[in-house]
Amino acid sequence: MNTPLSESHRIESYACGEWIQGTGKGKVLLDASSGEPVATIDSTGLNFKAMLEYGRAHGGPALRAMSFHQRALMLKALGQALMADKESLYEFSTATGATRTDSWIDIDGGISTMLSYGSKGRRELPNTRVLLDGAPEPLSKDSSFSAQHILTPLEGVAIHINAFNFPCWGMLEKLAPTLLAGMPAIIKPASQTAYLTERVVRMIIDTGVLPEGALQLVSGSVGDMLDHVTAQDVVTFTGSASTGQMLRVHPAIISHSTRFTMEADSLNAAILGLDAGPDTPEFDLFVREVAREMTAKAGQKCTAIRRALVPRPYADAVISALSARLNKITVGNPADEAVRMGPLASLDQRREVQERIQELSVEAKIVAGNPESPTIVSGDAQKGAFINPILLYCEQPEGCKAIHEVEAFGPVATVIAYDTIEEAIHLTSLGGGSLVASVFTDSGDFAHEVVAGLAPWHGRIMLGNRQSAKSSTGHGSPLPMLTHGGPGRAGGGEELGGIRAVKHYMQRSAVQGTPTLLTAVTGRWTTGAPVKVGDVHPFRKSLATLEIGDTVVTAARKITLEDIEHFAEFTGDTFYAHMDEAAAKENPFFDGRVAHGYLIVSFAAGLFVDPAPGPVLANYGVDNLRFLTPVYPEDALQLSLTCKEINPRETDDYGEVRWDCTVINQEAAVVAQYDVLTMVAKT
Amino acid sequence: MNTPLSESHRIESYACGEWIQGTGKGKVLLDASSGEPVATIDSTGLNFKAMLEYGRAHGGPALRAMSFHQRALMLKALGQALMADKESLYEFSTATGATRTDSWIDIDGGISTMLSYGSKGRRELPNTRVLLDGAPEPLSKDSSFSAQHILTPLEGVAIHINAFNFPCWGMLEKLAPTLLAGMPAIIKPASQTAYLTERVVRMIIDTGVLPEGALQLVSGSVGDMLDHVTAQDVVTFTGSASTGQMLRVHPAIISHSTRFTMEADSLNAAILGLDAGPDTPEFDLFVREVAREMTAKAGQKCTAIRRALVPRPYADAVISALSARLNKITVGNPADEAVRMGPLASLDQRREVQERIQELSVEAKIVAGNPESPTIVSGDAQKGAFINPILLYCEQPEGCKAIHEVEAFGPVATVIAYDTIEEAIHLTSLGGGSLVASVFTDSGDFAHEVVAGLAPWHGRIMLGNRQSAKSSTGHGSPLPMLTHGGPGRAGGGEELGGIRAVKHYMQRSAVQGTPTLLTAVTGRWTTGAPVKVGDVHPFRKSLATLEIGDTVVTAARKITLEDIEHFAEFTGDTFYAHMDEAAAKENPFFDGRVAHGYLIVSFAAGLFVDPAPGPVLANYGVDNLRFLTPVYPEDALQLSLTCKEINPRETDDYGEVRWDCTVINQEAAVVAQYDVLTMVAKT
Repeated sequence: MNTPLSESHRIESYACGEWIQGTGKGKVLLDASSGEPVATIDSTGLNFKAMLEYGRAHGGPALRAMSFHQRALMLKALGQALMADKESLYEFSTATGATRTDSWIDIDGGISTMLSYGSKGRRELPNTRVLLDGAPEPLSKDSSFSAQHILTPLEGVAIHINAFNFPCWGMLEKLAPTLLAGMPAIIKPASQTAYLTERVVRMIIDTGVLPEGALQLVSGSVGDMLDHVTAQDVVTFTGSASTGQMLRVHPAIISHSTRFTMEADSLNAAILGLDAGPDTPEFDLFVREVAREMTAKAGQKCTAIRRALVPRPYADAVISALSARLNKITVGNPADEAVRMGPLASLDQRREVQERIQELSVEAKIVAGNPESPTIVSGDAQKGAFINPILLYCEQPEGCKAIHEVEAFGPVATVIAYDTIEEAIHLTSLGGGSLVASVFTDSGDFAHEVVAGLAPWHGRIMLGNRQSAKSSTGHGSPLPMLTHGGPGRAGGGEELGGIRAVKHYMQRSAVQGTPTLLTAVTGRWTTGAPVKVGDVHPFRKSLATLEIGDTVVTAARKITLEDIEHFAEFTGDTFYAHMDEAAAKENPFFDGRVAHGYLIVSFAAGLFVDPAPGPVLANYGVDNLRFLTPVYPEDALQLSLTCKEINPRETDDYGEVRWDCTVINQEAAVVAQYDVLTMVAKT
Repeated sequence: MNTPLSESHRIESYACGEWIQGTGKGKVLLDASSGEPVATIDSTGLNFKAMLEYGRAHGGPALRAMSFHQRALMLKALGQALMADKESLYEFSTATGATRTDSWIDIDGGISTMLSYGSKGRRELPNTRVLLDGAPEPLSKDSSFSAQHILTPLEGVAIHINAFNFPCWGMLEKLAPTLLAGMPAIIKPASQTAYLTERVVRMIIDTGVLPEGALQLVSGSVGDMLDHVTAQDVVTFTGSASTGQMLRVHPAIISHSTRFTMEADSLNAAILGLDAGPDTPEFDLFVREVAREMTAKAGQKCTAIRRALVPRPYADAVISALSARLNKITVGNPADEAVRMGPLASLDQRREVQERIQELSVEAKIVAGNPESPTIVSGDAQKGAFINPILLYCEQPEGCKAIHEVEAFGPVATVIAYDTIEEAIHLTSLGGGSLVASVFTDSGDFAHEVVAGLAPWHGRIMLGNRQSAKSSTGHGSPLPMLTHGGPGRAGGGEELGGIRAVKHYMQRSAVQGTPTLLTAVTGRWTTGAPVKVGDVHPFRKSLATLEIGDTVVTAARKITLEDIEHFAEFTGDTFYAHMDEAAAKENPFFDGRVAHGYLIVSFAAGLFVDPAPGPVLANYGVDNLRFLTPVYPEDALQLSLTCKEINPRETDDYGEVRWDCTVINQEAAVVAQYDVLTMVAKT
């Protein structure tokens, strides 16, 4: 490999708008396979308090001035720039011990996550700066006092303290929702692999796409930064539970109730179903998945499978199939194409893993691999942090603790025999809370029962079977649209999960007031606020002139029995409540024949539509349609249609407009209430 | 007053199904007005670990076996029982120093909150035991792998550690969402007023409505209970920030990532708008609200106004109007009808408040009231914890700290002068995060700007003006449907907010698998899962026989140009895209004249409806209707309607059924997708 990495490569920090080298001697980092120096890291001399203040003073206001769609387009641009130049990242990644496949998870996986937020931000968020949360809450009978929950970006800085195993993905999966929320970030990668993170940050800064202060980087110790956090900052931590617990009780974090999210390694389980004997596709899928999760990234994944629970009758078959598969895994320098699994990140890590295997082997016996003398096909056997996959077996888990609590953060898993569903659930829960569990079964009943038991203990549960064999994204992959994090041992945090993660960087506030003031505050028309009825039909206004509250109040139209019968005949909807007076009267909701709901909304459109070509381009949908009062023959329908929400698109010459449509009868009772969704031209 | 309270009244705990007296000497509690002993409290001898285990073993499983609607009906029954016997609670409440009005907030407010959850649980939650969170997430192009987030109740116990000021409301507002989620609770009230809480718990237990183990009570010290919490338990705390911070770092809470929610007193602000001079209704509302919030519950409310920010030109007028109002507040024994404000909860509390006023008076001068020698109309001047309302004024807030940080938990507030909107926002934020702020203004622009600045620092913001003068629920009232809690100083927690609070006692899990397995796990039909097309139209099935996945696939129906023209003429919807080929072609979304969306759904109903009387009673609405592909003349429509979700009602002989409706054209492109909502009879 031809990398620029060497002892003289000093990893820099990006602080207060400048790339800075630490002023100390620094720590020398070694290539995981060769043990050769690849870089020196040091943050001595950084002014950590000033970095926080810089982010708050510059990055925050600049990001908050942008709308969600503008921030999402920024993420898209960053993701595209990284994707275009990703090969240079692969070069750095090999030094961490990652194979090409491992690097793909970290690099392509990270960039894809950022692109996913770029896309979701425009698809699922409005093009505004305040996010509404839930429906308006009427608080008075006369509609003069209501409430609306809103979400606004926190005004501090998000400090992301990341783990060594995913120097790219680990940064981007937190950075994307942070920026989308409108909050600046300071990244603090684990030193061991920080040269890759630094490279990604450099590429991002070089794009010039981010506002100044939106992203800073600490390469090396985080110094006294946490002493200076306040109520508006956020601290996230990914790594070992012990370090996380230490940070969580930091005096400044506690005294300011600073938001703290933790994602710690956990002893994730895979469960082979009672239905999934050695002759089933699920058995093969299980064996393949356990082997893959043990060896991907040399098992240095917080989501890796550490415990493989198998029905006792299938235990021998599982061990034999798994061992055969693991024995075929070639270990060596990841730059070598023949290598399937690289080394651990460092010799320290290997020593740690070997000690944990010792502890596990008190309760479980080693059935595959030798933890002390690795067999490798390339790399330096002395200086490289190599280890072969190690499989253990615990036949009698009753009373065992270590197998559920001791995590060897490497290619290590324990097969555990179980007898009943209840036992499988109970054994899994002894992990004390995990990021993920997977269940391999083709039985809906087994899946139902096991998921019901596992769910309170897990942030994610994957069901594997023959039908999803090809399409499954696998046990170990957090996905941008699914929550990542688990209770208890796994840290109790939540990341990703689509737009859910964006809200972790925002404050929810319930705003109470008159509908008029709520409309002024939220930018969305609130029921009860005044409407503007003018000479011009609002369908004749483009986004340039249309205003929140613009309304058309229509004439009334009587519905006759002939209308109902005609509509029934024309559409074919001859449901008895429309056609048969006696039968309709028997119905608990009606006093006689009623108009079709679809007739009501069709006549309503006839009343509110302005037919000539104009800025309104299409009605692309309807939301929350409720028929609230039956409409009987001779009732007269009248409606008001009010512009409720305007969402101009950044990249098109039109945008979405949401209209409140309220249809009343001659007694002013609301017969139908819904939102009409239209596309409207900008000019 | 004729209360059963005396030194010999020993407050009991309810532990492991039994009422138990502490075995120690106990602490004697005193009447706030007379200083006479009213009760003795002691929890010595309780087995706190056993209580947790009892709740987990008995209360949890029993609650989890119930559906959301069953739990909601349980809350309704409890609320009704308490309401029927509430007068007996008022008797106990007076001893705490509460006036009738104060008690109403605590007692009626608490019971109403419980009833609100009883109602919301049935209106806003499905009648199931698993809650779906968000939409299904397709994870593969061929629909063979998807995901659904679910929420399941935690399997531990919720320990609610409450404050002395609202012994009834403080318990019920946390208990209601806990039970609705399906989680048992242990209540630990503050000792000072625990006799009222004990009385409420006794009434609840006596109803026999709760399953055994769903509710336990610790009267007195919580002992070593927190040493025994695990990942599945929840601890909530309401009270002083210092105690809360101590609990938050408890080793067991930290090591198990036990969920911990804190709601601490904060220095809530009320802001008088720049537009709201002495001659405006908002000025009067502001003065009235500040006076009320200072004196209700003798200012012992976590939401009370501590800081009154006023435009400098109006400061004198505010002080003079406020002082006049405060001077009229009669202080004395709350049993005395002439009394408007009772004593503080204890002499200790008064000493504490007097010390805090000392600290405040370094930065602000006392302009109304004398903190040392109270003027009272009844009660014991020596033994009663009386104090008159104290108003301070800080004319030059620049550089002041105490006025934003020192909380006197009594009838004490500081008027602070400000000059600009920015300054008002900045001064308010110096509180470091608050539960609530109120803004008195009739200006939409002022409201918009101030809310944007305050929102990141507040859990709730109330806008007061002339239009809502009569209907406003006020600055100080948390409401069941709105979130209660604030960032930073206020503890960083969130309570209430309707169903949001229920989710605090549940674990979110992303479940991945084939649509078939997801349907088995969630009980809701997932797109891509197999459908069941039988001989019987599903509209002919009652809830007794209808199954998830039951489907009707209809014949195809061609839409002709005549249909479109006829529909246009009949409904009056002659929008050009339906009527004018040339103009329609100009539209960016269409290649020519298209059918009306409402025509598509009307024909769809004609295709899927089964007309004769039967179990399907009504179509009461439509959700998430989207028109995805334009329909041109001569296109043929066909659809499948699949039973997606069944929600039998507990108290009616019918229930809601949600159907997935997918309309395709002759090329199998989806032209419309929506949920049809129907009422279906149980038999």
